[in-house]
Order: sequence, then C-alpha cells, then structure tokens
Amino acid sequence: MCRWLAYSGAPILLDGILYKPAHSLIDQSLHAKMGVETTNGDGFGLGWYGTHTITPAVVRDIGPAWSNRNLQEIAGHVRSSLFFAHIRASTGTSVQQTNCHPFRHGRWMWMHNGAIAEFHRVRRELALAVDPELYLAIEGSTDSELMFYLALTFGLEEDPPEAVARMAGLVERVGHEHGIEFPLQMTVAVTDGQRLWAFRYSSQRASRSLFYSTRVETLRSLHPDLEFLREMSDEARLIVSEPLGNLPGAWNAVPESTYGVVQPEGDRMDGFTPVPA
Amino acid sequence: MCRWLAYSGAPILLDGILYKPAHSLIDQSLHAKMGVETTNGDGFGLGWYGTHTITPAVVRDIGPAWSNRNLQEIAGHVRSSLFFAHIRASTGTSVQQTNCHPFRHGRWMWMHNGAIAEFHRVRRELALAVDPELYLAIEGSTDSELMFYLALTFGLEEDPPEAVARMAGLVERVGHEHGIEFPLQMTVAVTDGQRLWAFRYSSQRASRSLFYSTRVETLRSLHPDLEFLREMSDEARLIVSEPLGNLPGAWNAVPESTYGVVQPEGDRMDGFTPVPA
Amino acid sequence: MCRWLAYSGAPILLDGILYKPAHSLIDQSLHAKMGVETTNGDGFGLGWYGTHTITPAVVRDIGPAWSNRNLQEIAGHVRSSLFFAHIRASTGTSVQQTNCHPFRHGRWMWMHNGAIAEFHRVRRELALAVDPELYLAIEGSTDSELMFYLALTFGLEEDPPEAVARMAGLVERVGHEHGIEFPLQMTVAVTDGQRLWAFRYSSQRASRSLFYSTRVETLRSLHPDLEFLREMSDEARLIVSEPLGNLPGAWNAVPESTYGVVQPEGDRMDGFTPVPA
Amino acid sequence: MCRWLAYSGAPILLDGILYKPAHSLIDQSLHAKMGVETTNGDGFGLGWYGTHTITPAVVRDIGPAWSNRNLQEIAGHVRSSLFFAHIRASTGTSVQQTNCHPFRHGRWMWMHNGAIAEFHRVRRELALAVDPELYLAIEGSTDSELMFYLALTFGLEEDPPEAVARMAGLVERVGHEHGIEFPLQMTVAVTDGQRLWAFRYSSQRASRSLFYSTRVETLRSLHPDLEFLREMSDEARLIVSEPLGNLPGAWNAVPESTYGVVQPEGDRMDGFTPVPA
Repeated sequence: MCRWLAYSGAPILLDGILYKPAHSLIDQSLHAKMGVETTNGDGFGLGWYGTHTITPAVVRDIGPAWSNRNLQEIAGHVRSSLFFAHIRASTGTSVQQTNCHPFRHGRWMWMHNGAIAEFHRVRRELALAVDPELYLAIEGSTDSELMFYLALTFGLEEDPPEAVARMAGLVERVGHEHGIEFPLQMTVAVTDGQRLWAFRYSSQRASRSLFYSTRVETLRSLHPDLEFLREMSDEARLIVSEPLGNLPGAWNAVPESTYGVVQPEGDRMDGFTPVPA
Repeated sequence: MCRWLAYSGAPILLDGILYKPAHSLIDQSLHAKMGVETTNGDGFGLGWYGTHTITPAVVRDIGPAWSNRNLQEIAGHVRSSLFFAHIRASTGTSVQQTNCHPFRHGRWMWMHNGAIAEFHRVRRELALAVDPELYLAIEGSTDSELMFYLALTFGLEEDPPEAVARMAGLVERVGHEHGIEFPLQMTVAVTDGQRLWAFRYSSQRASRSLFYSTRVETLRSLHPDLEFLREMSDEARLIVSEPLGNLPGAWNAVPESTYGVVQPEGDRMDGFTPVPA
Repeated sequence: MCRWLAYSGAPILLDGILYKPAHSLIDQSLHAKMGVETTNGDGFGLGWYGTHTITPAVVRDIGPAWSNRNLQEIAGHVRSSLFFAHIRASTGTSVQQTNCHPFRHGRWMWMHNGAIAEFHRVRRELALAVDPELYLAIEGSTDSELMFYLALTFGLEEDPPEAVARMAGLVERVGHEHGIEFPLQMTVAVTDGQRLWAFRYSSQRASRSLFYSTRVETLRSLHPDLEFLREMSDEARLIVSEPLGNLPGAWNAVPESTYGVVQPEGDRMDGFTPVPA
Repeated sequence: MCRWLAYSGAPILLDGILYKPAHSLIDQSLHAKMGVETTNGDGFGLGWYGTHTITPAVVRDIGPAWSNRNLQEIAGHVRSSLFFAHIRASTGTSVQQTNCHPFRHGRWMWMHNGAIAEFHRVRRELALAVDPELYLAIEGSTDSELMFYLALTFGLEEDPPEAVARMAGLVERVGHEHGIEFPLQMTVAVTDGQRLWAFRYSSQRASRSLFYSTRVETLRSLHPDLEFLREMSDEARLIVSEPLGNLPGAWNAVPESTYGVVQPEGDRMDGFTPVPA
C-alpha cells in the first residue's frame, strides 16, 4: 500500500521531518517495516500550506522518493506549519502524477493508505455517486481520489467526520452488493489548512497501522538530545503510517475504528463508524 | 492538437517512415505546419503489430518525441507491416502515459487528432454511455480514449464505420443538448491488425487535415531517387495528419466527411455521416 | 539554444514573474521569438534563495516547462528576492536533470544560453583545466556546466568578471588551437545570493540577445495598470534572454561584449573582454 | 548494487526470460535476495540484437523496472538470440538515462554490477586514461561506463579478457596509489553480438554473486513441466547475478576470479587476473 505523514505545528523546515529522523518517510520508501509492501517506490507527493495563500502547494512525481532530488531541494528550503507527505505503492492503478497523493480540492488536501477491495468492480457505481460538478475535477484513476470526491460530495467541507463516514458507508454498501465481504481498508488524512483529521478504519476491523506523536514537551524531556524535537513547537503533532524511528514514548497507536482531529482548540479522538448508505 | 501517422504495407523498419522523411513525424513534433499548434511535445506513442502475437505492442511516454532515445532505438530495430505513431499536443488533460495515443483494446488500436468541444461539460454523460464492462478498462482522462470506448460499446469490433458513426452521433447529440454548436472535431485511425480505417469529420465541416499516400508504384516512378520509397512495397499505404515532406504527387487529401479503409481486398473510401443517437 | 531569466529585488511570488507576464518565460518555452529555436522544451530549472539558508534551492526537470505542474505549484507558493529560471533547448547533449540549468556550487548559481562551438572536440582538454577538487562535482555533460567549473577554477568566488574572462579566454585559445574560428557564444548569469552578474559575449561579436529591465519606478509611471509591476520593489531588476512582452520602455539591450552587476551598492555595466589564456 | 541477466541462444521472446520465471529479474527489482540492496529501482536497461543490424537496440529508463509498461510491451513483442537486461541500484551517481546499463559502443554492449571503491577520488585520473577519441563518447557519470571505455581503450574489440584484465589492473593501481585497499568489485558482461563474456572479480576476492545456467537439455530432463525451458534451445545459456527462482540443478556459481565465454565454438571458463598497469 502506501505510507504517509501529516504535520501540524509551528512552521518547520520540511527536511527536519521528512529526511532527518532515523526511520524517516524517505527511508520508508525503501524499507517500510509495517506496510504490506516494504517498497513504496511508485511515486510520491508533498503538499504544504504557506503564508500567502490559503490553497496548498502540491508537488507530486512518479519516481521513487528516495532518489528524487527535487523533493530534497524543496524539503531543504520550504517551511510550513501544516504539510502532508505521501509515498505510494500502487495496488494496480497506473504510476502517474494524477494518481499520486495528496489530492487537492480548493483549500482541502486528502491522502490515503489502503484500498477499496476489488475496486474495478465497484469503480463505475461509486463514480456515479460523485456530484456531477465535482466529477469534472477527478483527474486520476485511483480509489483514493474517488474516496476524496465522494467525501466532498457528502459534505466534507462542512463536517469531515460525517462526510467520511458517509463515504465509507457507501463504499461498504456497494461492495456488499457486489458480494465483497470487506469492502474498505483505509487510513486517511484530510485538512483544510486549519484543522487536520485522521481516520483509521477497515471493514474487517484490521486496519493499517496509524500513529500519532506524543506531546512534544513530553518527548523533549524524554529525549533532550534530539535536534528535530528542539525545532518542533509544543503543540506540534505528527500523524504517521508508521513511527519515524524507535523513539521510546514517542508514538501512540490510533485505535481501531477511530478518528482524531488536530486543531487550535485542542486535539481529540472519537470513534468512527460508517453511516449506512 | 496532435499529429499522427499510420502505415500498412510490407514489413518495414519503423525508422524509415518515422525519422527519415524530410518532414517526418518526429520533425512535426517540433515544427508542425498544418496543425493548430506547431509544437506537439506532450507525449507520444507507437503501436506496432509483430509476427508472433495478434496483440500489438504499444510504447508510450510523456516527454517530447524529438528527444526520446528509446523511441529512436525501437524505430531503428523493429520492423512491422502495420503500425501507428502519434505525437500529442494536450488540449488540457494531463500529460501522462495513459493519455498518450494509441490506445489499445485487445487486438485493436485507436488514435485521434481533434477534440470533443467543451469536453469537461459532457465527459460524465459520455462516460455513462460506455458499456460497464468496458468502462473498467479506461485508464486515462482524454476525450480520445473515451471516444474509443464509446465506439467499442457501439460495435467497433464488428463494424467500425457504423460504430464510429454512432459514437460521433452520440457526441453530437450530447453536445447539442449542452448548447455546444460544434461538438466534434476528429481525425481517427483504428485497426484490428488486418485492416486500417481512417476517419475525417467535424461537426463544423472544417476538419483537421488528413492525407493518404499515392500508390507507391506511381511514387517510385515520380521519384526514383528516394530511398525510403524503394523500401516500401507496392501496396504500402500511409495515412498522415500532414504530408511527410513536399514530395510532389505523393499526398492526397482525404475529403471532408469521409472515411477510408486500407485492406487486402483493396482500399476504398466512402462518405461518413454520424448516426443520430 | 535556451532562454533564461534572473530576478533580484524585494521578495516576490515567483509566479508573478514566471507565468503572468504576456510573453513569460513559460510562454517562451513554446514560442520563443528571438532564440535560435522557437521551442525550448528540453528541460528547465529554477533556483531560488530563501530566508533560512544561504544555499539556494535548485529544482530541475527534464520535460518541457509549459506542462510541468510542479513548476507551477512552486512558482505559485514560493517567494524569493533572488532567483534564476532557465528553459533548455539542447544543442546535442542528453536531456537529463544534471544537464539542466541553473548549476549550483555552494552558495553560487550559474546559468547559460549559448554554446562552446564544436564542444565534443575541445571537451576533454577543457575538462582537464578544471581544478581536480572541483572536477569531482561535475555531474552532467554540458558545455555550460563545464564553463561554470572553469570559472570556479579561475576564482569565480573572488572576482566573477575576472574569472569569467579567464574562462572565456581559455575556451577561445583551445578552440583556436583546434581550428575553430568562433569558439564561444554565451550569455551567462551568475550569483552568490547577494549580487548578480550577467555577461553577454561571443567570439564573433554577434551574441545572443540579452536585456535588463528599466527601473521599476519609471516603468510604473509608464504603465500604471500593470499588476505585476505593482508587486515589484523599486530596486527590482530583471535580466532576460528576451523581453517578457512588448511593454514599451521596459527593456534595454545589454550591449555586445558587456557585463553588468546588480548589487545593493548600485547596479553598473562594464565592457567584457576575455583574458587570453 | 545492481542485478543483471544475459541470454544467448535461439531467438526467444524476451518476456519468457525477463518476466515469467518465478524470481525473474523484474521480481528482483523489488525483492533481490543476494544483492547488497533488496531494491533495484534506480533505472533499468535492455539491449538486444535483432536480425537486420549488427548494432544492438538499447532501451533505458530511469524509473523502476517493476512498474514500467514500456519494458513489458517490448519484452512481450521482441525476440532476440542475444540480449542483456539490467536493473540499477545507484551507489551515488545520478539516476539518469545515461547512467543506466547496458552501455553501447558500436556493436558492443557492456553491463556491470559492483563498484570502483571511492570512485570520486579516482574518477579524474581514470578518465584521463581513456583514449581521447573514445572519451568523447562518454555520456554519463558512472564508474561502470568508465570501466567500459577503459576496456575499449585497452583493446576490448580485439581481446576482451586481456582488455578487461588491463582495465582491472589500472583501477587497482590507481586505487592503491590513493590508499584504497580494495579498489575494484565487479561482475561484468560484455558482448559483440556474437560472443558473450562474463567476468567475476573483486580486489578482495569476495565478489558479487554470478551464476550460469546448466545445459538446457539437462534442465529439461530435470524439469519437464517448465514452459520457459521448452522455449529455450539446447545451446541457450543464461548468466545472471542471482538465480531466477529455486530450480534445483539449474544454476552454477561462476567461481571467484573467473571469466567465461559463451560462443558458437563451445563455452568455456578460465581464471581472471588483472594485468598490472
């Protein structure tokens, strides 16, 4: 599948998160430990919010992240207070820029690890459920992008947890109608540039791994020697497919069937249940 | 738009047709004379039939043809009796491999120059008209590939002229329903590996240019000095978006609203009229 | 050959210079007017200085600039007070990232339009003249990068005009020894992040075009309606291979055999003569 | 490092060797078992001899082999009696087409797994030892290509084992002069289209793995059920970095410090010792 990382906190040089940690996302592109595949070399993407526009920049390319110099250049020179990074292991759809995460719609970004089971069998029916106006904006052929546009159709911009739950409910109903026992497997991150939501769910209740970082304050006291922690602000939060290194005390598993939101008014987690469609 | 070339005849090294003529297709990628755009640098494709399988090989890439070494290597070492080559100038959809021509389905290949007018407005409705089983095979986001799958839906494998006419009729009906005056502009080549059909049509009756080559026998007597003519068999036929060089007597315009078929039992041309959908 | 653009001034969104002007550099990638080639589609590069490091970021890719989404994303989200942009038309060497401009060494950047005549004949001898320590850093196969490393060998970091003059002198001597009448054709931009030098020279005294922008203050009074001028600071200066649009009064040709420097202590121009090697 | 494969025998569809075996070279691009790296995703190359020219076709690209559709298309449609395939894991030099193997010079092809130790320190001196006429043809920045041009300088076209031994001797002498204990690590394949030589050597006498296939006749009797063996001719020979699957009896290690030649007059092996330079 894939690996991803979402950061929210004080502005930080992307490099400090993307490249410097021991088991960084870039390292995971070659040597993922907890994914279905150890290699995530089928493209990558980086999306970040700056200070001058509310729309994020999204840079995506089709080669492996580990050898991509442009990614390294950007990471070494761009600072952001909210960014997504994703490395892809294709589950069958083409290796092309429009299939790389994150996907963007207006000020929103979406990225995904997982799959809609037997996607080719349900793709057309799910595509028909997308709002016709939104349908025009679909550029690629992945299940992930389609999930985004279904969530947008179901009101993502107003109520993300509800919209994602309705999307999941639709995917499950259509899958079941096609005799697919476990239609959905997902860890999703979505943001509007202010708040960041992360979802962990699968029909089988055996979801891909997802972790959030411990409060930076706590971490710094545990690991006073680590440079990249010193650069992180107190309220900084990382959500990752798998831990960036083996830092004791640093990473907490997001429970099964749960979503969390990182926001100025305080982070919180809640249960996640698809809304039957 | 784009430029394309289709060859049918005795097996020939692709290079002799693709690179050697004075105003070759590769030259047209930089300096097209009759197209809407002089530069066709948004990807290319090459499809050829060999002697061991009935399915053609299709090689496509996203950079300009003029600098692509792999294309040159293949053209310099592969011989074929029936091949398509296409250079793309995107009319808006992504520059990605799955948007490059020719498109293939089973033993069939399809390539196109032109556009469905205001494609984004009619794309969803046209996509819905594709046979659900065929829909699964659509990989890219172009109007050209969608036209192919509509034609397949309408029986391309049984009666190409009829299927293309029904496709054109549907595109025109849907376009007109959206208030689009001239919905379709196309020159299309399609083949099953045995016969080769070419269509020139536009709703406005102002279609992109299309030419077929004069009988090789005649050409050779006109131009006894030209090497690439000596390598071509008597029955060889080229259909091209614009002439390969200024060879007097070599190229004949396909008339407006016309299709032609190149086949063992003798080539012929006929009028083309969309079948109202 | 190529086209390039260098900006120095108050921090500005790159997009305002790269994409918005009528005949922007991106437009020139498809439709250059004053170059040897109208198409500059063999790769591109962008180098910019940020606020947190003295080393510039350099992003380069091998496809045409006109269709590159990542370039557009970066340009739409990155601000800089000093940046280079380059679009390439290969004069024969490979289309690959390491042959794209700008080239970087430490805090220095270099870009070039032109050619060393019959480069293959003199390449080895010129390469031998590069300082062995610097030689290790050469990654590509262009004349442009080799010129950069020769200039570095000759003291670019201490005295750029002198070092470039010695480089030019060496190229001319070696060329003449090989019977090449006019060994060098160049417009070069080079910067250390503080000052920006631009050189226009050719052995034949028929150099590629080079222009610098009129004082912004003057321009704004001439063209009060132009948005991108309002975003530029008074001291902002553009140096370009060809004018960005037909703005009357905006562009001044750099004279033959001349170099200029843009710097805080005041811009100035001076004659350029190679130092015989 | 890398993995490679060389085939010599009756003409065969490349696909049968490249993709169909259980642990094919394509599978090794993701899951190599005996290499230093398990992932070989930094480009690939394919070179084959056809029936109409003595110069081989060489197709190379920079993405991973495992997801490259063009490679699959070519492999599925091209037959050859002698071909090389290579998947790359960069040891530091750029991921670019000109750094992908095989390298070609006239009718000769060369590919390599291994490295010149501390290449950056000896690169310039080794480059100077290349015949100036040949030097012009070097396009990339790898140690592998430089080894090829050194071997050409030392008479590869007349006596391959002698030329490779002299190249190895030079690399060792220059390395030792720079205080490098074990300057060379290599498995090399080289061919002129008629004969195929393979070398296994390292200064440390701990060379990368290299295997040759058992006589096909013998293999077929051992494994009468295997389709790809039925398609291979009696005299067919494969030389591979690591076995294609676990077929008992199929693969024989090339001994340390040994080279072999596959040729019409009978294959043979002999010891390999660098010629002191």
